[in-house]
Amino acid sequence: MTKVALAFDLGGTELRGALVERNGRVVARVSAPTLAGAGSEAVIGQIISLAGRLLVERPQAEIAGIGVCAPGPLDPKAGIVIAPPTLAGWYDVPLLDILGRHFGLPVRLENDANAAALGEWRFGAGRGSGSVVFVTVSTGIGGGVVADGHIYHGRRGLAAEIGHMTITGEGDRCFCGAIGCFEAVASGTALGRHATRLTAPGDGSLLRRLSGDGNVSARHVVEAARAGDIRALELVEAEAKWLGIGFTNLLHLYSPDLIVMGGGLANGFDLLAPLVRGTVEARAMPAYRDVPIVQAQLGDQAGLVGAASLILREGKPGTSLAMAQNNERR
Amino acid sequence: MTKVALAFDLGGTELRGALVERNGRVVARVSAPTLAGAGSEAVIGQIISLAGRLLVERPQAEIAGIGVCAPGPLDPKAGIVIAPPTLAGWYDVPLLDILGRHFGLPVRLENDANAAALGEWRFGAGRGSGSVVFVTVSTGIGGGVVADGHIYHGRRGLAAEIGHMTITGEGDRCFCGAIGCFEAVASGTALGRHATRLTAPGDGSLLRRLSGDGNVSARHVVEAARAGDIRALELVEAEAKWLGIGFTNLLHLYSPDLIVMGGGLANGFDLLAPLVRGTVEARAMPAYRDVPIVQAQLGDQAGLVGAASLILREGKPGTSLAMAQNNERR
Repeated sequence: MTKVALAFDLGGTELRGALVERNGRVVARVSAPTLAGAGSEAVIGQIISLAGRLLVERPQAEIAGIGVCAPGPLDPKAGIVIAPPTLAGWYDVPLLDILGRHFGLPVRLENDANAAALGEWRFGAGRGSGSVVFVTVSTGIGGGVVADGHIYHGRRGLAAEIGHMTITGEGDRCFCGAIGCFEAVASGTALGRHATRLTAPGDGSLLRRLSGDGNVSARHVVEAARAGDIRALELVEAEAKWLGIGFTNLLHLYSPDLIVMGGGLANGFDLLAPLVRGTVEARAMPAYRDVPIVQAQLGDQAGLVGAASLILREGKPGTSLAMAQNNERR
Repeated sequence: MTKVALAFDLGGTELRGALVERNGRVVARVSAPTLAGAGSEAVIGQIISLAGRLLVERPQAEIAGIGVCAPGPLDPKAGIVIAPPTLAGWYDVPLLDILGRHFGLPVRLENDANAAALGEWRFGAGRGSGSVVFVTVSTGIGGGVVADGHIYHGRRGLAAEIGHMTITGEGDRCFCGAIGCFEAVASGTALGRHATRLTAPGDGSLLRRLSGDGNVSARHVVEAARAGDIRALELVEAEAKWLGIGFTNLLHLYSPDLIVMGGGLANGFDLLAPLVRGTVEARAMPAYRDVPIVQAQLGDQAGLVGAASLILREGKPGTSLAMAQNNERR
């Protein structure tokens, strides 16, 4: 049997596990609602339990190691989860050591957006590209950069915190305390908030009908825009302008071969893309304007397959082993 | 005799040449006003002539090769100067090939801000740091990133175009056409423009007295602020706020171990630094707040020694030779 990696995507809402082959194929999946309020020991117990279920499902699998992605901030080299805002009671948890001792297997830990960037670069929308900036637009905005075959880590693995790049002096205060963060003006949450403000319960608008007269979400805006609703189309246009300003910055700063957009709002990619493109072409310097902006391909598996590939395709963190994309099926 | 590199810094105003040792020591310097309006052949003639003067000065020097830094956009791998706005008639000039054929020596070409970043990382303010973001604040704002021992190049060597990162929705239109570029609000030019607007010829203000009732420059603002002039101090405060917003973005995006500030405005570093620091501490996420921001040490030699080190310390562009800082004199 071919070697596989155990992969986990530790989210604030859902904990997902998989067995992944070297070519990125997911051969088994499990999940559970994360016990996010119960502290690190409880969640690590969940990881161990899910691993057990996967191994029962595939008793003959030869496990090469365990790749885990988790919310930042985390230190990928040291293998420590520092203090994710979505997981209560996690402070400097040495997850790599804990899982390594329990399973007696190599373990690699990576920031979730970085793992997704690596997954998309190696197996998804970024295949064939030298370098990729991956942007996930959902509750917040996160990012990961793969350049010269490596995740761009920076000090303590903290690079590509693109949601907290200041792009304007206006808009709502970000949860981080600053004004003008990319995330505060352009996340799915921000889009829903803008739509909620623009309408009122019982006003008969399509946006409020779709939301059952509750708060409007980004998903409702995309749905209403698809139905031709004028207000929703204007909201999409404004959203695309903010995304275009942020993406232009990413082009100027990282000069990738490709920008890959994922996250919940990528469901509206077909509506957003031409407008985002228009803003980029108006604002980027000429040499950057032709860089493609494409939709992510791997959905919620990007982080899992990226984390698995850390085990199946790379050396220790910090070693200079050349990383390769998945060319095996080409 | 030890091996040296011929190094050239091709600026829009001044063309500078040097002989540089492997440890970064400049053993001879020459310069000439750049024939910036005369096209590439005339300027390449100047380079050849300056090289001749250096070789006459040190007839026994053993020349390992030629490192050149020039304004972007340029392609460092192909060795082509693409279209620098400050050099008339330069379009896709294969400078590496031209100089290589003329001298029969290895040639390396690099963007001026990248070369300065490399110089400061290897021999200057960045020595001992794993990764550095170098920011030059002068007529415009440029930058270079050294991470994991490499210049961060991106597609076509175009990464770190930090002057055209959008950080606000206000201010004067940038020469690039966009509103809110870092450079448009925070360059030395912008600071001088703000000071010129705030005063009028003959108003008796210190700023106008220093400028002889002409346009006020950033240098006048720094000088007046040092003398305690209230308006100048307010201008410095506003300037530091913009720099702090931009630097915070650079921390979030690149997560360097160190930010190095150079360029003409670094002459006011002592005045600006505490205020820049204040803005960074108010806006950066906690994990980034302790990153030092320091003044460049090599002045206008940074690009020359960085370009020389491309010859004396590295392999071909794109090869994975580990780059090293200068530890020889430690």
